[in-house]
Amino acid sequence: MTSNFVAQDEQFEEKVRKSFARQRAMETLGITLEKIEPGRIELRMPYNEAYTQQHGFLHAGIVSTALDSACGYAAFSLMPKEAAVLSIEYKINLLAPAKGDSFIFTGRVLKAGKTVSVCLSEAYSENSGERKLIAQMTGTMMTVIGREGVDQ
Amino acid sequence: MTSNFVAQDEQFEEKVRKSFARQRAMETLGITLEKIEPGRIELRMPYNEAYTQQHGFLHAGIVSTALDSACGYAAFSLMPKEAAVLSIEYKINLLAPAKGDSFIFTGRVLKAGKTVSVCLSEAYSENSGERKLIAQMTGTMMTVIGREGVDQ
Amino acid sequence: MTSNFVAQDEQFEEKVRKSFARQRAMETLGITLEKIEPGRIELRMPYNEAYTQQHGFLHAGIVSTALDSACGYAAFSLMPKEAAVLSIEYKINLLAPAKGDSFIFTGRVLKAGKTVSVCLSEAYSENSGERKLIAQMTGTMMTVIGREGVDQ
Amino acid sequence: MTSNFVAQDEQFEEKVRKSFARQRAMETLGITLEKIEPGRIELRMPYNEAYTQQHGFLHAGIVSTALDSACGYAAFSLMPKEAAVLSIEYKINLLAPAKGDSFIFTGRVLKAGKTVSVCLSEAYSENSGERKLIAQMTGTMMTVIGREGVDQ
Repeated sequence: MTSNFVAQDEQFEEKVRKSFARQRAMETLGITLEKIEPGRIELRMPYNEAYTQQHGFLHAGIVSTALDSACGYAAFSLMPKEAAVLSIEYKINLLAPAKGDSFIFTGRVLKAGKTVSVCLSEAYSENSGERKLIAQMTGTMMTVIGREGVDQ
Repeated sequence: MTSNFVAQDEQFEEKVRKSFARQRAMETLGITLEKIEPGRIELRMPYNEAYTQQHGFLHAGIVSTALDSACGYAAFSLMPKEAAVLSIEYKINLLAPAKGDSFIFTGRVLKAGKTVSVCLSEAYSENSGERKLIAQMTGTMMTVIGREGVDQ
Repeated sequence: MTSNFVAQDEQFEEKVRKSFARQRAMETLGITLEKIEPGRIELRMPYNEAYTQQHGFLHAGIVSTALDSACGYAAFSLMPKEAAVLSIEYKINLLAPAKGDSFIFTGRVLKAGKTVSVCLSEAYSENSGERKLIAQMTGTMMTVIGREGVDQ
Repeated sequence: MTSNFVAQDEQFEEKVRKSFARQRAMETLGITLEKIEPGRIELRMPYNEAYTQQHGFLHAGIVSTALDSACGYAAFSLMPKEAAVLSIEYKINLLAPAKGDSFIFTGRVLKAGKTVSVCLSEAYSENSGERKLIAQMTGTMMTVIGREGVDQ
């Protein structure tokens, strides 16, 4: 992963790690933060039968959960020091069943705006080391400054 | 909830209940099936801190998980006896923070096609009995017949 | 059409009409403004072979053009006097071929935020007076104040 | 542009050109077919004041029209000889105002399924030779075989 963006906040990596650690859903689902670059994030989750749909594939919503966090933190990494991030919307296309030993989720910023950022993220399954694209997301993230109850 | 659709499969309610019961993610997340009508589904989930994002709101991906299942089973209720359902895509707009005592998710079919169905679903928070719209989803669901590994 | 919203700008109707009149695309495509209420817009377009796709249906992009304007002006009707509106994103589900004598497009606001508004819009075909839902859109609109080159 | 896909129909280029020529909207809007590869399409449109929104930018719906055709023909290029293509849904994120001397639209297939294909497309403005990304679309396209009124 290489990135064309420069982070405004030199402490972006620490800021992302701290906020990610506060997302209880990540810990509960076993999603881990693998890489952080300005405008780029990589997450990983092992297969977990507890989060499957009726055919034993990882539920599309769980794939969305990881992709949304990947998008959000990619955008957050480029935001000013005092900003928080909220998801405005996202859309996911499911390309193949989410079956595999583990899953990789990459998010990157397409446009970093003052108020609104747009990100792309992709989900891959890994089976015995073979990687396959299983889902693609585009999302819009909002820079929130000074709103009560919405901190980093 | 009233519905303009007629189910092809008279056993649609039983079929939906059986498939829903096989979605391990629903059980794990504490999402329950409250109502089933032809082309309409209602789900419920209590607030659970284990699935929150960094501000203590329910993670948008968890809201998506419930809305995707609501869409999918709304579509599935109208499908022929032998069909299975898979999500092709969905898009969610997040309208307000997902905070509340519990959450209601309603899904309904907008168009029931032979191969492809389109559904709308909505998420509401409940706080001391007051209901608030917090998210809206549109999704495309596929009727799958005779594909290996994809049963009901 | 009835609306639950109250316009901040008492002159909202005039404001919408003026801005709509400046959308050259509306005039060129023959799209007219039929109704304006706070947070609700209705547009109309006669069938025009010049804007069809390969099967003689109205091109999905032309349907999008009308739905985007319906969304945008529904949001704009609720914005403060000095604001301009820009589309951030939209998603359209195409439910039936766009064939008919004419087309009706309705847009309504789902959430009117300070910076970001979310709208739903629907396209209907009309054939000898019979109305059929052919497409559904959800869109996010931005309130823009004081940006150079972006006025009403 | 390079492509990893192999077209099933050796005559894919001719098939795409013929169908594109039947899209009256393309001719009316001045959108031209610049490149065809298996699973990849490039279109171009000069700026045209007749299709602008209220600030003089190309209307987002017109950008959608070109991106939808780019997606559709990218998918169509990989379909069997007898198939027709229809758009199921698409979502567009608008990244920058559509101002420029002309616009380039590229579409490529992300997943070519038997019934459903998923494509990405991008719109660029060109100003004195400088290219800028202004919009991004993901779309789902359907392979249609033997449906009355829906030929190539």
